Amino acid sequence: MIGKLPVKTREDLSIAYTPGVAGPALAIAKNKALAYDLTATKNGVAIVSDGSAVLGLGNIGPEAALPIMEGKAVLFKRFANIDGFPIVLSTQNTNEIVAAVKAIAPTFGGINLEDISAPRCFEIETRLKKELSIPVMHDDQHGTAIVVLAGLINALKVVGKKKESIRVVINGAGAAGVATTKLLYYYGVRKILVCDTHGVISGKRRGLTPIKKEILKITNRNNASGSLYDALKGSDVFIGVSKGNLLKASDVKTMAKGAIIFAMANPIPEIMPEEAKLGGAVIIASGRSDFPNQINNVLVYPGIFKGAIEARTSQITDKMKTAAALALAAVVKRPTTEKIIPDIFDKKVVLAVSNAVKKLAR
Amino acid sequence: MIGKLPVKTREDLSIAYTPGVAGPALAIAKNKALAYDLTATKNGVAIVSDGSAVLGLGNIGPEAALPIMEGKAVLFKRFANIDGFPIVLSTQNTNEIVAAVKAIAPTFGGINLEDISAPRCFEIETRLKKELSIPVMHDDQHGTAIVVLAGLINALKVVGKKKESIRVVINGAGAAGVATTKLLYYYGVRKILVCDTHGVISGKRRGLTPIKKEILKITNRNNASGSLYDALKGSDVFIGVSKGNLLKASDVKTMAKGAIIFAMANPIPEIMPEEAKLGGAVIIASGRSDFPNQINNVLVYPGIFKGAIEARTSQITDKMKTAAALALAAVVKRPTTEKIIPDIFDKKVVLAVSNAVKKLAR
Repeated sequence: MIGKLPVKTREDLSIAYTPGVAGPALAIAKNKALAYDLTATKNGVAIVSDGSAVLGLGNIGPEAALPIMEGKAVLFKRFANIDGFPIVLSTQNTNEIVAAVKAIAPTFGGINLEDISAPRCFEIETRLKKELSIPVMHDDQHGTAIVVLAGLINALKVVGKKKESIRVVINGAGAAGVATTKLLYYYGVRKILVCDTHGVISGKRRGLTPIKKEILKITNRNNASGSLYDALKGSDVFIGVSKGNLLKASDVKTMAKGAIIFAMANPIPEIMPEEAKLGGAVIIASGRSDFPNQINNVLVYPGIFKGAIEARTSQITDKMKTAAALALAAVVKRPTTEKIIPDIFDKKVVLAVSNAVKKLAR
Repeated sequence: MIGKLPVKTREDLSIAYTPGVAGPALAIAKNKALAYDLTATKNGVAIVSDGSAVLGLGNIGPEAALPIMEGKAVLFKRFANIDGFPIVLSTQNTNEIVAAVKAIAPTFGGINLEDISAPRCFEIETRLKKELSIPVMHDDQHGTAIVVLAGLINALKVVGKKKESIRVVINGAGAAGVATTKLLYYYGVRKILVCDTHGVISGKRRGLTPIKKEILKITNRNNASGSLYDALKGSDVFIGVSKGNLLKASDVKTMAKGAIIFAMANPIPEIMPEEAKLGGAVIIASGRSDFPNQINNVLVYPGIFKGAIEARTSQITDKMKTAAALALAAVVKRPTTEKIIPDIFDKKVVLAVSNAVKKLAR
C-alpha cells in the first residue's frame, strides 16, 4: 500500500498519518458507508482460502495456497482495478473459518472465498452470506457456474436448441458441479442429471450427503439411476467438472445430435477436443487456453465484485449471476462453434458483467 | 497487488495464475519457509486493530479505524519498503481477537497490533506472542517505549546522569505507560514511579488491576503514595503518556536540576515546551512535529519489523527492543538539548533499527 502523494516532509507525514487521518476517521465514525469513499481497502476484496482444495493440487495448506491467492489478486487488479488482499487461514474448521471471516469483514468491500473443499464450502458460504452485510462469493462455485451458463447460452444459439428441452449431464458434485446445477436450474434448464464417482445421483441411492439430497430436488425428476455413461445416452450437453480422461469418442456418439461438451477438468480434460469431435460433438469447451472456448473464472469474478462493490450491494443473488452470464454471453455478437465465450482480454467483458450486477443491485 | 510482470497475453495469464502458480505452491507445500521467498504477502505485516483506542479519538470502531491503518501501511512502505495490510476487526472480545489473528497469521510475516485499548491489549499481545511463530508487536506499547528509551539514553548523555541513579515519573498506565515502564526497568532504570488518574501506583492502594500489580513489582520500591505532583518532587525525568495541560512551570521547578521532560500527549502535551523551559527543564521532548525532539513511533516500527522479518525470527524480545533503542540513539552522533532523537527522514534510522534486531535474531 502506497500513498497517492509522496511522504517527503514532516508535513506530508502529518497528512499521511496523524493528525491527517483523524478527519476521515471521524467522518466514518459518524457514517460507516463513508469508508468506501475515504479508504482504499474498503473497496477491495479479501481472497480467503484455507488451502484445502487448491486448484488440482488438493489440500496443500495455507502457506502453499498463498501464491494462488496472490495470482488471483493480480488478476483482480489487472481486469477490474480492484485491490485483492490474500488471506490464508490456519484452520480448516467450518466454525472457525466463519468466525475469522466475520471478524475481518469490516476491512473489505467483499469476500471472495477460494479453494475451500466441499462440502464445507457450501455451509461456510451460506452462513457468511447470511451474517455479513458485504457480498460473499465462493468463486470455485459461482464463477465457474456463471461462465458455464454464459457458454451454454451461446452454445444453444449455435446448435438451435432451447434451455427448456435440453438434457444436461453434469459430472462432478463438488463446489463447481453443485453451483452449476443450481444456476442452470435457476435459468430454466429442467432436465439435469448429476453424476458423482458412484454414478447418477438418484433417490434410490443411500447415504447421500445433505448437498446431494438438495441437488436431487432440482434434478433427476424420473429418478433414473446408472453410470455416467448411462446418463450420457441421448443427452444434449455434457458438463465435466471432474477429472481427466473419462470419455471417449464412442461415449459422445451415444449423445443426441449437436452434442455440446464442456470438459473442464484441468490440466487434462474429461475428453480431449479432438476426440470429442470424432464422437460428433459440435461445440467443445474446456478449461485450457490452448483450445478454443476456454471456460475461465477470470471472465467473471473481477466484474462481479466490481459491480457489487460499486453498487454497495450486500448480496450477489442468483438473479445477478444469471444477468452476468447473459451479459457475458452477449459480448460475443455472433457465436460460432469455435467462439461461444469472449476472449479474456476483451475489454468489454468486465464492464458487461459489472454493469449487469449493478443494474440489479439498484 | 500487482504483478512484477504485466498480464497482456494468455501466456502471461498462465504464468500469473494457473498453471504458473502451481510450482511455487508445491514448493511451499514441501517447505513452508519458502513462502518468504516465493510470495510477497508473507514478507508483509498485518496491521490489526479493533478500533477501540484510536489515536486521540477513542473507541470509534473498525471502519473508522481503517484510515489510520492505511496511513500506517503507507509509512511501513515508505520507510522500510514493507507491505502493510490493514485488518480491522468486527469484535472487541479478547478471545475472538486472538482467534481471528491466529486464523489469518499464515498469510503474513508479522503482526502489528494497533490502537487496541488497555488492558485487553496486554493479554491479546501476550497470548499471540506465545501461540504464533511469527513476530507480534503492539506498536502503541513497544514502539513508544523504544523511542522513549532511545531519547532518554541521549538525554542522559546531555545532562550527565546515569540510568542507575535517576528518578523517573511516568504518568499514564495505559499501553504506552506500561510498556515504557517495563522497558526502562529492563534497561536498568531502578527508581520509577508510575502514576494514573488516582496518583502514584502504590501497594497501599486497593483494587489495582492485574497489570498495575505487575508494574508495582518493578516500580515504587519505597511504597510511596501521593499525587503526580508529589511524585515529581526531586525527580529527574517526567514521561507523560496521559493528557494535555497537566503541568505548570512551578511543577517542573520542584524536580531535580537538569530535568528531562517527555510530554507526549497529543495534540496538546502535558506541558508546552516553553512553559517547561520556564520551569528549568533542560531537555524537552513531545509527540509534536512542530517542536524539537519529536517522539514518533515511525522511528521504530518499520525497522523493527524489517529486521524481524528479514531474520525470520519468531519473537521481538526485550533484548531486541533495547538494542533497537540503543541503535536509534546512536544515529545522533552528538546529542544536544534540541536533538536527542534522529530526524524521521534520516535514512540511517531504519537500517540502524533493523540491523540491531537482525543481529540479535541470529
